[in-house]
Amino acid sequence: MIPEVSALQKARAAYRPKLPPALRAGNIRIVLGAPTEPASDQDEIKRLFPYTYGQPVATIAEGDGQQLKTEPLRVGVVLSGGQAPGGHNVIAGLFDALKAAHPESRLFGFLKGPGGVIKGKYRELTAEIIDRYRNTGGFDMIMSGRDKIEKPADLAACKRHFEEMALDGLVIVGGDDSNTNAAMLAEYLRAQDCSTAVIGVPKTIDGDMKNGQIEASFGFDTASRVYAELIGNIARDATSAVKYWHFIRLMGRAASHVTLECALQTHPNITLISEEIQAKGTTLQEIVDYITDVVVKRAAAGKNYGVLLVPEGLVEFIPDIKVMIDELSTILGRDEEYLQRLPDHSERVQYLSTQLTAASAQVYSSLPLSIQEVLLTRDSHGNVPLSQVETERLLIDLVSDRIRLMKARGETEAKFSPLSHFFGYEGRCAAPSNFDADYTYSLGYAAAQLIRGGLTGYTVNVQNLTQPAEQWVAGGTPVTMMLNIETRKGKQVPVIKKALVDLNGKPFQTFARHREEWALEDCYIFPGPIQYFGPCEVCDAPTMTLALEKS
Amino acid sequence: MIPEVSALQKARAAYRPKLPPALRAGNIRIVLGAPTEPASDQDEIKRLFPYTYGQPVATIAEGDGQQLKTEPLRVGVVLSGGQAPGGHNVIAGLFDALKAAHPESRLFGFLKGPGGVIKGKYRELTAEIIDRYRNTGGFDMIMSGRDKIEKPADLAACKRHFEEMALDGLVIVGGDDSNTNAAMLAEYLRAQDCSTAVIGVPKTIDGDMKNGQIEASFGFDTASRVYAELIGNIARDATSAVKYWHFIRLMGRAASHVTLECALQTHPNITLISEEIQAKGTTLQEIVDYITDVVVKRAAAGKNYGVLLVPEGLVEFIPDIKVMIDELSTILGRDEEYLQRLPDHSERVQYLSTQLTAASAQVYSSLPLSIQEVLLTRDSHGNVPLSQVETERLLIDLVSDRIRLMKARGETEAKFSPLSHFFGYEGRCAAPSNFDADYTYSLGYAAAQLIRGGLTGYTVNVQNLTQPAEQWVAGGTPVTMMLNIETRKGKQVPVIKKALVDLNGKPFQTFARHREEWALEDCYIFPGPIQYFGPCEVCDAPTMTLALEKS
Repeated sequence: MIPEVSALQKARAAYRPKLPPALRAGNIRIVLGAPTEPASDQDEIKRLFPYTYGQPVATIAEGDGQQLKTEPLRVGVVLSGGQAPGGHNVIAGLFDALKAAHPESRLFGFLKGPGGVIKGKYRELTAEIIDRYRNTGGFDMIMSGRDKIEKPADLAACKRHFEEMALDGLVIVGGDDSNTNAAMLAEYLRAQDCSTAVIGVPKTIDGDMKNGQIEASFGFDTASRVYAELIGNIARDATSAVKYWHFIRLMGRAASHVTLECALQTHPNITLISEEIQAKGTTLQEIVDYITDVVVKRAAAGKNYGVLLVPEGLVEFIPDIKVMIDELSTILGRDEEYLQRLPDHSERVQYLSTQLTAASAQVYSSLPLSIQEVLLTRDSHGNVPLSQVETERLLIDLVSDRIRLMKARGETEAKFSPLSHFFGYEGRCAAPSNFDADYTYSLGYAAAQLIRGGLTGYTVNVQNLTQPAEQWVAGGTPVTMMLNIETRKGKQVPVIKKALVDLNGKPFQTFARHREEWALEDCYIFPGPIQYFGPCEVCDAPTMTLALEKS
Repeated sequence: MIPEVSALQKARAAYRPKLPPALRAGNIRIVLGAPTEPASDQDEIKRLFPYTYGQPVATIAEGDGQQLKTEPLRVGVVLSGGQAPGGHNVIAGLFDALKAAHPESRLFGFLKGPGGVIKGKYRELTAEIIDRYRNTGGFDMIMSGRDKIEKPADLAACKRHFEEMALDGLVIVGGDDSNTNAAMLAEYLRAQDCSTAVIGVPKTIDGDMKNGQIEASFGFDTASRVYAELIGNIARDATSAVKYWHFIRLMGRAASHVTLECALQTHPNITLISEEIQAKGTTLQEIVDYITDVVVKRAAAGKNYGVLLVPEGLVEFIPDIKVMIDELSTILGRDEEYLQRLPDHSERVQYLSTQLTAASAQVYSSLPLSIQEVLLTRDSHGNVPLSQVETERLLIDLVSDRIRLMKARGETEAKFSPLSHFFGYEGRCAAPSNFDADYTYSLGYAAAQLIRGGLTGYTVNVQNLTQPAEQWVAGGTPVTMMLNIETRKGKQVPVIKKALVDLNGKPFQTFARHREEWALEDCYIFPGPIQYFGPCEVCDAPTMTLALEKS
């Protein structure tokens, strides 16, 4: 009676992901373009990457295949960082491509992320294992981790393991930092005359690894759709119950792409975009003013309900909060012990008010007690644990106070009954949409070809994603081409530039053009759950973000 | 570029719900059985319902149709209580059936729940309006409300409106209480010689309106599936990240059917069922012991992660908490003003410890401060606002304390990183699954036939639901047959008995047989999102609860 997998898992296991035509071809060749260079910091990056700098863009095309290795290959794969839907399909695509090229090729999965590579912990991935995970969500096949392969000793350990394992290649599935690390490892191995090729795969539900070469990071499509399903359901509840304001926080610390995509898919009344708030220098009070204004105007039109979206990273982008936190960090670094010894919180606030600037002291004391307390703690890395700030609850608290005051003054009759939600873990491990299932399988399949072509220090790409898979084109982008030099923790380091929401781009501009209407009218759209079997426009469409960017 | 509905909304608008064969027939007759009586309290219920007591069970069958009214009918419909997926399809089925019987029939939707009936506020529901809402979630077509038609003045107002509107029938879509009210209204109208028939429709995502006649309340299937989708995704995240315990609270105050159904669909490590806790008299400390035990055992096996489900109503079912709350209510009723005047919370706790029994004082002081404070407030009805108790956070707090102590004593090395979730509003207004879309459309279609047959004081039913719709049978159950006398707010009143989780029933027994294995192993199942277009076993299956009950 009790099944071991769900009916959908069973049906979905049989799905055959779509591949770009060149990858389906029996004969494949790799077309190399002209040498490339990064958009900035060329000299410094050339100095740091003497062996892998300036490599050409690679395109996979149908061809005679003579270029590519035909002997059995031994390849490793590792998942790095947060889960994203489709990770298992990258591995399945890689496996199928290696086996198609030579049935004696072997694939090894390093366990629990880059730490597993450093420690040489892996399991061989057999057909039986791969088949169990086709088209599934999660990273549980080999798990993930957040270690970084950076230190000289770690790089040397990797080389040792690769030589012991006789690895022809390693595929690193990760975001901007992991792809940067892939380039550093590739450079190191080349310099050390180790023949293991390193290929990166662009992964992150945040959608912030994209550029002229990489159209999208995988997982963004599925995760956004899961959140949009829930937001749509909640919007329908809001217009049905006509008495709640839903404040919804969404995953996405550095970039607001997920929040923007969800807004484009569902048309909520209020959407806060961190990048805009930072660019305009909007203060916390101004944000509260804006929200209150919409709540009060809707109430005047008889609508004591609504939906608000906020990205989890918002707090770090609000200028006056950021200044206050920086000041707090300095004070805590200096006087933490003294502060902790003060008898109670009110004594701490008194002391802080003598140390902070007037503006920061005012911002701090305007916050709810629970958040004041969080801001005086440190996480295990010595940072203020901003992720513990439940921004949606903070905004509810501040807007409630404001509306209470306006009611007391007779300025509004709004009934403000807020409910809070946070959506993050619900989407990271969802089973991939058809788009992500196809895209990731193609990425894995293409990564195998880049290794067969002897390329290293590349991020695999699949382009033309807004068209049917029949028109997709796969290839590789030299990581050095995407690097620039940034200051991280006081050090100048090469990194892939994070793609934040472009305020001049079509996705944001489209949202900005409609948001006033969405604020006061009920323009909600209900995307519903991800569909796998229905009409193409329901099952295979790209995100609104990608469609607008490419339109 | 910006669409007004989603691709899925568009595709789904065209879905034609399946109907039982008898309802599809051109000619319909109603077969009446023998007189019925309630299982208990027959005399009292007969005294309260002299006109509608003892009516026969009705079955809709193919036939000559001479029995049924053929003239144009005027019918009203109202949605009562919390949203449930499929409400709009009840109305669409009702509309289509009335129009099929006579194109000049008219349907009126009373606005914002039973309050709209009392006030006579309605809108005519035209084909254009109906078509916009086919197969959609939510109750926004005419909205809902929680008023009750009970007071003599309200009953009289209803009768006046019905006569002015020349209504042949009123369909009340609601849960156990609303169906009881439907019976009271039917009885009143019969007694007053008003010819408007009243028919109830069994609705509630909680799944607690069911009995020998009513196999399921609508909305339970869809809402449970939405929650199970999310729980499955989170379970996949747990096994991928291998570092978080997810404590998930689910909607369902009185009954734990939703939680049990989700457990059967996803196999979490720990599931708390309120009915079992009440039956066994499990204390809060024992619940914390049980959870801690599983956390510690899993940690010993290297698994510092897991998933726990808890129904939102749990707190009210824990015997020692219930006793403590009752005592608190008495104290607050007597000394609330004095308590509020005490200078701070610690003074209040001191005072309470002199007034509560020793056991209750101990339970109270074991709770986190934030919950201690909630328990000293009252909602607008003068009750302790238990719905504000975030049970999942309460359990996290208590289990964290316990594990911290065990670690300090060297009794465990468990790493306990808990995350909390609450799923409720995400499911109430989801677009109905095929099951709920078909079931609700059939209920609405059948309700029209009961009105055409001149029946009143019935709840419409569709039976044989675990079989394909081709074998479904629709009919009506006299509400008086389902009534019993219970004490509510100190008064003896007739009510439909709420169906709580039956600890001897197959759904609970199946869960109980597997839960030890589910606790320590990773037996998670991933149901995935509701599918509308795929294979039948993916799209049309009934809930596990119903399948097990009927097996």
